[in-house]
Amino acid sequence: MSLDPVTSTSNPRIKQLVRLRNRRHRDRSGLFLIEGYRELSRAADGGVEILEVFTCSQLYLGNNEQPLVDRLATQGADIVEVAETPFRKASYRDRPEGLIAVARQFPTGLDRIQLGTDPLLLVAESIEKPGNLGTMLRAAEAAGAAAVIVCDPTTDPFNPNVVRASLGTLFCLPLGVTSTSDVIAWLRRHGVRTVATTPGARRPHWETDLTGSVAVVVGNEQYGLSAAWLEAADYQALIPMPGSVDSLNAAMAAAIVLFEAARQRQVG
Amino acid sequence: MSLDPVTSTSNPRIKQLVRLRNRRHRDRSGLFLIEGYRELSRAADGGVEILEVFTCSQLYLGNNEQPLVDRLATQGADIVEVAETPFRKASYRDRPEGLIAVARQFPTGLDRIQLGTDPLLLVAESIEKPGNLGTMLRAAEAAGAAAVIVCDPTTDPFNPNVVRASLGTLFCLPLGVTSTSDVIAWLRRHGVRTVATTPGARRPHWETDLTGSVAVVVGNEQYGLSAAWLEAADYQALIPMPGSVDSLNAAMAAAIVLFEAARQRQVG
Repeated sequence: MSLDPVTSTSNPRIKQLVRLRNRRHRDRSGLFLIEGYRELSRAADGGVEILEVFTCSQLYLGNNEQPLVDRLATQGADIVEVAETPFRKASYRDRPEGLIAVARQFPTGLDRIQLGTDPLLLVAESIEKPGNLGTMLRAAEAAGAAAVIVCDPTTDPFNPNVVRASLGTLFCLPLGVTSTSDVIAWLRRHGVRTVATTPGARRPHWETDLTGSVAVVVGNEQYGLSAAWLEAADYQALIPMPGSVDSLNAAMAAAIVLFEAARQRQVG
Repeated sequence: MSLDPVTSTSNPRIKQLVRLRNRRHRDRSGLFLIEGYRELSRAADGGVEILEVFTCSQLYLGNNEQPLVDRLATQGADIVEVAETPFRKASYRDRPEGLIAVARQFPTGLDRIQLGTDPLLLVAESIEKPGNLGTMLRAAEAAGAAAVIVCDPTTDPFNPNVVRASLGTLFCLPLGVTSTSDVIAWLRRHGVRTVATTPGARRPHWETDLTGSVAVVVGNEQYGLSAAWLEAADYQALIPMPGSVDSLNAAMAAAIVLFEAARQRQVG
């Protein structure tokens, strides 16, 4: 249903969009932002409940935006046309693409994750930078992971920069969010082997068996994995670096180990 | 040599720092910025000529900064103390660490690159985002690459965000910058095999021989490698993605192939 177009930056709906960048407001409302065509399209495919879509057709990059908006309208989303100036204010991008949606946060309990045969999982503990968490989701999805589990989060996965850096892959694979102790118990119960990636390990990741039912566990950007994880993991693995040891960030390390897992699983 | 402390944001030396964020000003002056302890420390180790160091000791994170400043002063750098307000203005970081240097751009001709036995090289063509180029440098250094060659650059490697995203690894390994045709000719002359990474390839990167004298070639974020590279390369390789095909960015792809090379080189 189309409402009157928004032409003022002080419109309360525009202000709500800006407020949703703030975690407290997200937590309280149970809502979050999805900006961009690819991200919103993946959210729609992933069954995320979209409540409102703010559009600025002058900023569309192609011809795919309008059919997506029509589809979301059919599914019950409010469509709100916004003039360029207030839209740019509401956007958190340098080059807005004319689509910002308000969506309902979806449940992230581990009970919702269906593990198939021999799943590859990524477990990310206490990641601080939304960009890193988003990049990890993207890499996990590309590598064929069955799910991503975020434990003891310091950045919430509904942060707009997680959505953005994940390119919407946040909506393409099951996501669990809970405490480290819950994740350890859950993985044990499901017979998933755990591989803690840590520079303190002796065995290279490429000499670690990453086939079968396995979770790759990566830690905080600065402090690495907690003692709980280092003790609980079935194996520890390091990424050998012929160059400097501090030269890989957490997201890059996750991608390298996940793609080594993909290699082992395909080469057999 | 210590000059009078800078206390005003309109000080001409502070203005010069802000101007050096701009490429035109960098090109014209032949200078560039290095911000942060780790970056500046690696520049000093790498023999980069540091002309001026702007310091704000209240912002230092540890005790290593002053010895580094003293060392640079001994080597002839001007040390300029700056009050916190103008320093924050001069910094391009959210959390400045109290060190910004002006350095002289170093030569990047291919003739300066010494290839040892069986070198691993990264060739990056027309990378647009400074963050991606910096991340590639970081990954290349970690994977033990002998050099990085940037061809047909759209972002110059002296961009402050390249320095930053590289964490200063820009100064840890030889860097060449030139045209694609020059790079192709130079690699042929030196007997370096070239592996073009492209989603159009049939052979997975992990089934491609990445041992010996080899260059991993990655292309622009949006358009991939040029026709010139796709035709000239000895092999083409793709990163198989069990998930979505567009889910890896260029820097991540480079890191994955470089670490597969590291694996093959170590496992033998």
